[in-house]
Order: sequence, then structure tokens, then C-alpha cells
Amino acid sequence: MEGQLKRKLTADQLAAMKPEDFRKMMRGGAWDPEIDESGCCIGYTQHFLVTLPSECASDFHAFCIRNPLTCYVADVSDRGASSSPLLAPDADVRTDCYRYRVFKDGGIVDEPYDVVKYWQEDLVTFFLPCTFNFEHVFLAKHVNWRSLGGFTSNIRCVPAGRFKCDNLLVGIRVFPSTLDAVRAIQITSQLPVAQGYPVHIGDPKEIGIDVTNPDFHRTGQPLRPPQPGEVCMTWALAGTPLLAIKAARPPLALTTYPGYPFISDRRTEEFQSSFRT
Amino acid sequence: MEGQLKRKLTADQLAAMKPEDFRKMMRGGAWDPEIDESGCCIGYTQHFLVTLPSECASDFHAFCIRNPLTCYVADVSDRGASSSPLLAPDADVRTDCYRYRVFKDGGIVDEPYDVVKYWQEDLVTFFLPCTFNFEHVFLAKHVNWRSLGGFTSNIRCVPAGRFKCDNLLVGIRVFPSTLDAVRAIQITSQLPVAQGYPVHIGDPKEIGIDVTNPDFHRTGQPLRPPQPGEVCMTWALAGTPLLAIKAARPPLALTTYPGYPFISDRRTEEFQSSFRT
Repeated sequence: MEGQLKRKLTADQLAAMKPEDFRKMMRGGAWDPEIDESGCCIGYTQHFLVTLPSECASDFHAFCIRNPLTCYVADVSDRGASSSPLLAPDADVRTDCYRYRVFKDGGIVDEPYDVVKYWQEDLVTFFLPCTFNFEHVFLAKHVNWRSLGGFTSNIRCVPAGRFKCDNLLVGIRVFPSTLDAVRAIQITSQLPVAQGYPVHIGDPKEIGIDVTNPDFHRTGQPLRPPQPGEVCMTWALAGTPLLAIKAARPPLALTTYPGYPFISDRRTEEFQSSFRT
Repeated sequence: MEGQLKRKLTADQLAAMKPEDFRKMMRGGAWDPEIDESGCCIGYTQHFLVTLPSECASDFHAFCIRNPLTCYVADVSDRGASSSPLLAPDADVRTDCYRYRVFKDGGIVDEPYDVVKYWQEDLVTFFLPCTFNFEHVFLAKHVNWRSLGGFTSNIRCVPAGRFKCDNLLVGIRVFPSTLDAVRAIQITSQLPVAQGYPVHIGDPKEIGIDVTNPDFHRTGQPLRPPQPGEVCMTWALAGTPLLAIKAARPPLALTTYPGYPFISDRRTEEFQSSFRT
């Protein structure tokens, strides 16, 4: 069932909410899907989840290792376990997100509000990154930017076993000055948990994208295309593994619904590190 | 007098030379100006020097503070002293560079091989940055790039007293991939002594530059303009203070000759730090 918030929460209350309370609220089915989850539990990491039978988990793990900007693995569950020892030992990934997608043989068969009935003892869950994790750092550090939305690029992921994706899903952001762009790179380079540094700098046409035609756009506000003097940068998006799952056609796959990630007990800064440099 | 190298040194010998020996060679007047000094004493910092009467030094210091990408001050001499306690206590800035420029009232009056006869007890020397300090780090870290040369941009420096410059001198580099560009930003962000991070990302036309027409180009090799998919980035150049000196018209100013910086006893990595972030 799709839940409703019993009482209206303010943006400040959602921002200050503890992840444990947020997950409890999701578990109880109380949520308004119009709320932008990127503004909830500010400072705690959010994760796109991919759950697979253990027989395909090692191939998928190799896919993640080979495509770290899309699929940096913050943790992986024990076989059959529904929590993450590192990120949220008390969580239950089967119930603690707003909504899920269920794939069989690569096709979507259900979009339920929990995945209890699909659970199997051989499942392994990957806690993948989410760009929601850096936007609040940009705000806190006074980096200026605007979003152009989500797009399908022609950037190819490195395949692993049957997992492959020839069209990396990306989010494009415009920075009004070079200093904003430089600082965005400095910040995101240290945050693999937020998809790390950009996959592309410059004109998105070079990666097959028409910026006037996004696949989706969170705010729905009218878009202002990049202007001379502004810097356009493109980041990998969490949704990319969905395409890899469609290609690999595993017997079962569970994911969080795009835009509604899992929220952990760990803070973004705990993952601050320089990687691949 | 313009010296000649008594014996031909190989590129490897020049690269491995100790700064103390290099300065001694300069002091003795033995040098071949055709040699690219960026390849000498690899790993030690190189500095553009500006020497001014103490009465204008505080204005110039303010100019440096306000334009850190051009004029990061690695050290400043004591009044009348010809060495740097931090960078090279045993050096003599009056003799230890290949060549100098002498300005009176903002105009060039001499380009001598030492400045002993111009020395005064009230002079203060600023040890400014040099992009030579990051290219060897790019090489060591396998960052790919090519240089397009030096240009006059329309970027304005922040003025201080009579020191001002409305046309920042810049060096443009082309990076074949976004990853190369990202890593170049990561590296240079931590190296203010090498002019820090870029002042501009993207099409140099936006800062008033025609890339096919450089003011100067070190290697003299034919230039390949930026291609689709490549990332163009622009750094401040050490020569900019020359323009500020022309504008300020101090009674006397001594500088190193462009392309022939002072070499210190300190290693580039000793200056590794994050600044302005």
C-alpha cells in the first residue's frame, strides 16, 4: 500500500530527522512521494540499493569495481541478511525505503512498497552511491550550481560477466563560474559515496546529450541551458545499474525506486577520501 | 655577460641537479639560454622573483594576497636581505638566476645577468609561484596534457594601491579526457606554489583569447587546437606581476627574466596544501 504522512512535516523537520526515525516512518508506510528525499536527514548518506541472488552477486560486484563512479560499494550485506553492518545494523532493507522495483529476467514485474514477499535466503544487497550526498555539501560550502536534470549518455560502462551498460545515466549541473566548478571537483573527488568526481566536463553534446530534453528533472522548474562563461559538468547517476540488470537478466533483482534511496546512519563526511588519484 | 656552459650537460644531469649547484652555476654565469629550465632540478620549487623598495612593498604584498593564483607568496625576504630564510638561506637572489629585468618608473631599463649594481638596502624580494612546479607532478602522476602556450586574457586582477592588471597573463593546457582534467585540478588545487587550480575551464574565447595566436610558446612545436571531447583549462602565469609593475611605476623594480625562475632548496610537495576551499 502507498502510505500517507499522518501529519505534515516541515522541510526543516525532514532535514533534521534522524535516519532511524526516517526508516521507521518508511517501514510504517507513512510517506508523501511528492517530498524530495534529497532534503531529508541532511548529512547522512543515501544509497541506491541493488539486491541479487548470490549466484550473480560476484559478477555484479566486479561490475561495481570496474565502474566506481556509478557503483562505489559503501557496503554489501551478508548473504540473506537484510541490514548493513557498516551503514545501519538495525535497518531492514526490505521495508525501510519508500518504494522498490522488482525485476525478473531483466523485466520489471512489480513496484511494491516493501519487498518482504520477494525475499530469499540467497540474496545479497549492494549499497551504492547517490548524488543526493553531495548537494548538501555544495550548499554548506556555498558552491553555486543549477541542475539540468537526468539524461541518457553514450558513455559506456566497463562490462563484467553479463552485466553491461552502454548508456551511462547521468545528471548534469551548470556552475556559474570556474571557481564554483573547481570547488565542486575538489569536494566530489573526496566523496565516492556521492558518485565521486564528474564523468564529463564541457559540452554535453560530446557525450550524446541534448540538454533541452532531459529524461527527468527533479524540481520541474524551467531549465536555463548553459551560458557562455558557465561550466557544465556531468556526474554518473545511481540509476545506471538498472540498465545493467536489464542486460544481465538475473532470475530476480530488487532495487530501490529511482529518487527514493535508502538512508544510512553514517555521515557523508565519514566517507571522505581521495580515491583513484 | 651572457655565460656559456663550459661542458654540455645532458637532460638527465640537469633534471637531477641539486638547486645549490644549479644556483652556483648561474652565479658563475655558465648557462645556455636554449635549455628549458622547467626540466632542471626536478622536484624543487621554482619562483618568479619581484624585488621592490620597501615603500611600495606593502601595496604589492596586498596585490599578492588579493590575487593568490597569480601571486601566492612562498616567502618574502627581510628588508635588504638577498636570500630567503624559508626557501634557500644560502642563496643570493642578485646573482643566482640566469637573467633579470630592471624597471625604473614602470619601464624596462636593463636586462642584465645579475643585479648587484642595482641593489639597495631598502629592497624586499617576493618569491612568487611558477607553473613549472606542477608539470613534473603531472608527468610523475601520468596526467596527459599538451600546452597551447602563453596568452593575454581579459581577466582582471584585484588592484591594490597603484598595483593593478586588467589582463591576467595565462597559460592554456588541453587535456585529452575529463579524467585527466579532473586529476589536474585535484593536483594543482593542492599546489598554490605552482599557481594553484585553473582560473578558467572551457573555451578560451570566453576570456578573450584566440588559441591560434599565442603571445609565446615554450617548445615552438606546431599547436593542435582543442578537439571535441578534450578539456581546455587555463592557469595564471607568473609574468602577470610585470604588468602590475608597469602600472604602478615604482622608482625601481627587479624581476627574474620570464622563463628563467629562481630555484629553491624546497620540494614542491612541501607546499602541498588545500587553500581557499
